Amino acid sequence: MTESFSTLPLRINADRMSASFIHLASIGATGDGGVSRVTFSEEHLAARKWLQTEIENAGFEFRMDGAGNHSAFLDCGIKDAPTLLFGSHLDSVPNGGRFDGALGVMAALEVLRTVRENRISLRLNLEAIDFTDEEGTHASLLGSSALAGNLHPEDLKNPYSGRENFKAGLMRAGLSEENMLRASRSKESIAGYLELHIEQGKRLERAGINIGIVSAIVGYGSYRLSFIGRADHAGSTSMEDRLDAGQGAGAFILAVREIVMRDFPNCVANVGKIEFAPGASNIVPARADLLLEFRSPDEDQLLKLDIALMKLANDKAEQFGLKLLAEPLGKHLPNLMSADIQKTFRSSCDTLGLSSTVLASGAIHDAQSLVDVCPIGMIFVPSVDGASHAPREFTKWDDCVHGANVLLQTVLSLAA
Amino acid sequence: MTESFSTLPLRINADRMSASFIHLASIGATGDGGVSRVTFSEEHLAARKWLQTEIENAGFEFRMDGAGNHSAFLDCGIKDAPTLLFGSHLDSVPNGGRFDGALGVMAALEVLRTVRENRISLRLNLEAIDFTDEEGTHASLLGSSALAGNLHPEDLKNPYSGRENFKAGLMRAGLSEENMLRASRSKESIAGYLELHIEQGKRLERAGINIGIVSAIVGYGSYRLSFIGRADHAGSTSMEDRLDAGQGAGAFILAVREIVMRDFPNCVANVGKIEFAPGASNIVPARADLLLEFRSPDEDQLLKLDIALMKLANDKAEQFGLKLLAEPLGKHLPNLMSADIQKTFRSSCDTLGLSSTVLASGAIHDAQSLVDVCPIGMIFVPSVDGASHAPREFTKWDDCVHGANVLLQTVLSLAA
Repeated sequence: MTESFSTLPLRINADRMSASFIHLASIGATGDGGVSRVTFSEEHLAARKWLQTEIENAGFEFRMDGAGNHSAFLDCGIKDAPTLLFGSHLDSVPNGGRFDGALGVMAALEVLRTVRENRISLRLNLEAIDFTDEEGTHASLLGSSALAGNLHPEDLKNPYSGRENFKAGLMRAGLSEENMLRASRSKESIAGYLELHIEQGKRLERAGINIGIVSAIVGYGSYRLSFIGRADHAGSTSMEDRLDAGQGAGAFILAVREIVMRDFPNCVANVGKIEFAPGASNIVPARADLLLEFRSPDEDQLLKLDIALMKLANDKAEQFGLKLLAEPLGKHLPNLMSADIQKTFRSSCDTLGLSSTVLASGAIHDAQSLVDVCPIGMIFVPSVDGASHAPREFTKWDDCVHGANVLLQTVLSLAA
Repeated sequence: MTESFSTLPLRINADRMSASFIHLASIGATGDGGVSRVTFSEEHLAARKWLQTEIENAGFEFRMDGAGNHSAFLDCGIKDAPTLLFGSHLDSVPNGGRFDGALGVMAALEVLRTVRENRISLRLNLEAIDFTDEEGTHASLLGSSALAGNLHPEDLKNPYSGRENFKAGLMRAGLSEENMLRASRSKESIAGYLELHIEQGKRLERAGINIGIVSAIVGYGSYRLSFIGRADHAGSTSMEDRLDAGQGAGAFILAVREIVMRDFPNCVANVGKIEFAPGASNIVPARADLLLEFRSPDEDQLLKLDIALMKLANDKAEQFGLKLLAEPLGKHLPNLMSADIQKTFRSSCDTLGLSSTVLASGAIHDAQSLVDVCPIGMIFVPSVDGASHAPREFTKWDDCVHGANVLLQTVLSLAA
């Protein structure tokens, strides 16, 4: 009987994880199922304070680095052993959901608890981590960039929140820019980074699959595009005589969707912001400024999509007699997940009898900060209706537990 | 010789009008051919002060009513005779052109000078008028509405410029809201209203015609349209799974132009302002708000266009799975010009050997304020390249003189 019991795969304590998850979701709760825990807000700091207490009450070593990253540390007892990191983030977007980030941190802590209470000997230290400001309230992937040594003084000069808000937030959190810039760790000290996250899309739910094994975090490009026409009186200028910047913008917005769906099935593109100038009801738009971004899991496709979209913008400008200005705003190549870790995730799913598929992450995640530091790996669990960054964000509890079990199995395999 | 000389039609003094016009264009000049004489600005008040001096120096009676409308008055000597009004406005849009409004006022003053120096007996008083705030810096057609008795206390509660700016402007101009609301004149006192204006479009220039006789000022309708979709993460949500409000807006903008050009050749429509919410590069637009306006010289067409555009908006919303909100912002039926005055304008053109055509005004003008008070009539002279409300606004001087001569002949016919 001992024999047969020991062959069952080890599983996390779902009830214990549930209790922690529910408590966390009450901190910064917005009353509609969502949470607001914007980085360095009172709610965010309260959640971190609670996490610290949870870690200490569970008997783990609590660590906080110069970037404010919070960790539970489990020493393997081997001198100079590297550390296998896994976790996510407790901060949220304003009025966000209670699963994004939080599930990954709670699962990481539960994995640590399960490993310790089963007295499993491992060759790696384990560290369950809550990264600072994944959502980029102040700076995108702030805590993981700092840990990876990718944070530079210029990254902190123009925080999204504004300098004053950022500085006030640092003060509330007891942090400093100097210490943030000194939070990097050596490559030798980190054996890998794993993260469990909700999908924030509909693919897993639609396919009825338990676990998404992330192959890559998509690369992206973004532009500010300006279609330039001529301001004319909208009453006295005939339709034929106009150089209406809005026509170029409208045609472009439609064609972007068509071309991506037809020619780039694994890619996405979005026009999320637009403005006409001078912007009066009775003046033909002289200028339409819009923000375009596009993403692809494949470097070659990303380049081809970039070229296709710029050609499209030029064609639509020409069609309506407009000029086009295209200002590149950002570009990031796809970040590939470790093939070995993907394979281990797959084995873990098989061991647990869970279905899995390989997919790319359309959203950015802390894992990508670490791509040049250590092997990285991510898994997704299904998001109901694909909703995210909103109170209606939801993942069935069974799916959350499946994800945590896959994380546990993978940690055990990698650290064995 | 006296015989043959007297059969030549009387003409204005083009050099005298030119001197006045050039001086006026120097007040508020922006250095690039344009002027900035925003209503109640220092430049606007300086132009009006100069006009008053010009009127008084020419020996006419200067009048100013409670709305600040400035006039040169020429009494016909007949007791209780009604007055034939003609003029335009000295105010401009910010960085506007030097012809819009200014030409009409300078031509009106020159007509008065010509009539008096030729000692012509008429049965009507003549009044050359500069209306307050035609451009609607504070309230659209403010001075002419006040004179026509169409100005009500609620019209002054939310001036476009804001209450504080409006009140400060009134104070600078030595005006008061109370007096503005008491500036109306009786129908019996006004025999008609005539206005010479630049076309602000390309039709006359393209057709090579001297004078446009205005048949109507177009009616218009306007709406705030909101296409409602769903905010989703633009990285993790596939193109198929989006409810992208920008798609509805883009398709609508394109289709508006197509439908107006195909089915409503005498009408125009414009989407002059647009905004996406939440308005972030990486979020699929949940909402697109846009301002639509459309104009037609014909009441029946205006109604049909309204219905067609609303159907179009609904169709495009439906096509992309969006909801549509349509909030009507304003509606104004076309204002018809007096058929008799149009006929007289035509005779004047024939007398002067000038080509003419009938057209509708796409822009609003002070004449429409007076449509229920007296017969109204307007003529246009060609705008080079159709430009207006901009420094490059230009009308050849010969065309300006032609317009003033047609105004003179028509005043002489109507007041004879």
